[in-house]
Amino acid sequence: MVTAREPKQDRSRATRLRLLEATIASLADQGWSATTVGVVAEKAGVSRGATQHHFPTREDLITAALDYMFDTRMDDARRESTALPPGLARTEAVVERLVEYYTGPVFKAALQVWTAAAADPEMRARVLPLEDKFGRVAHRMAVEHLGVDDRDPQTHRLVQATLDLARGLGLADVLSDDSRRRGEIVRAWAGVLDSSLKMNKGEIAAASG
Amino acid sequence: MVTAREPKQDRSRATRLRLLEATIASLADQGWSATTVGVVAEKAGVSRGATQHHFPTREDLITAALDYMFDTRMDDARRESTALPPGLARTEAVVERLVEYYTGPVFKAALQVWTAAAADPEMRARVLPLEDKFGRVAHRMAVEHLGVDDRDPQTHRLVQATLDLARGLGLADVLSDDSRRRGEIVRAWAGVLDSSLKMNKGEIAAASG
Repeated sequence: MVTAREPKQDRSRATRLRLLEATIASLADQGWSATTVGVVAEKAGVSRGATQHHFPTREDLITAALDYMFDTRMDDARRESTALPPGLARTEAVVERLVEYYTGPVFKAALQVWTAAAADPEMRARVLPLEDKFGRVAHRMAVEHLGVDDRDPQTHRLVQATLDLARGLGLADVLSDDSRRRGEIVRAWAGVLDSSLKMNKGEIAAASG
Repeated sequence: MVTAREPKQDRSRATRLRLLEATIASLADQGWSATTVGVVAEKAGVSRGATQHHFPTREDLITAALDYMFDTRMDDARRESTALPPGLARTEAVVERLVEYYTGPVFKAALQVWTAAAADPEMRARVLPLEDKFGRVAHRMAVEHLGVDDRDPQTHRLVQATLDLARGLGLADVLSDDSRRRGEIVRAWAGVLDSSLKMNKGEIAAASG
């Protein structure tokens, strides 16, 4: 809670956070065009002046929001990793959780920004480094949670394919609730992935043994 | 070529086609906001009046363009299916071609429309039946080209997953050329898909034998 006795820098941080969260919510619900600095400031209950003090341009606000929310999701993911079961159930849990990220509001907000950036060179230049970072961090997280050896090229590609699948499932959920079909796909792929990774591990062991 | 001696209805059809193609090109290159009836008419070299005779609203023009271009791609796919090799090479060729559709201009145009429809209830109502149709037709096409039995639930889910993967790979190609990485993913996926479909077939035969 923000109170009158809170130090100034904590208040400033809380204001910044409200703006970032309002930006993601606005992008996910109202879309790219409707997400202006004015709309976000009003949604967050922050004055226009204070908003522009934190984020001089709309592009600054939007890229900061995506970056911050992605980091927050990954921090959550790091904490959740301690509770993973072993074996096939682990692979299923990891694929399920990955797919959850790609169907949540941060993905839906990112999709608005990516699509706008396709036809906007300035935005594209800002988004490309984020895309690179998100891809690398999500991949590393998936490898750690699956507990596999990413130095093996086939393992690397199957983890990449799992992230691509998750992105595709995210896109299929944009206009309607696709959760029932998605659940079946996640289980089917997790089964195939689990035996492919194990088979691959066996082949590597046999080749080096 | 449109000539003065061409019958009126052929000229009308040619005009319509030019408008549909200009709409897809404009959506894919300039994005949703820039794709107005005026911009498309100018790009196609068609008068504003003639454009509105064919397509009374922007929404009519855009949904007709997606629908027509999708049907055209699928007609091409039907003709290409005669040249498929057997075995794993067939699975690879089918996955590769599917992924090609999802990285081409029709997908890039559709992505603009889907993303806009996420925050636009009227557009969403128009796009949902298209999404349903595109999904069904692409699935049937993939099943035919792979030569598998879609009545088996696991086969059905793996074909669905392949379409979801293709969609995810399409999205990864929107801001930068992802073709090198994509080629590796397609080959890895096709290998896993091919052995899973074969294994599945063997299990069904054993269970019913």
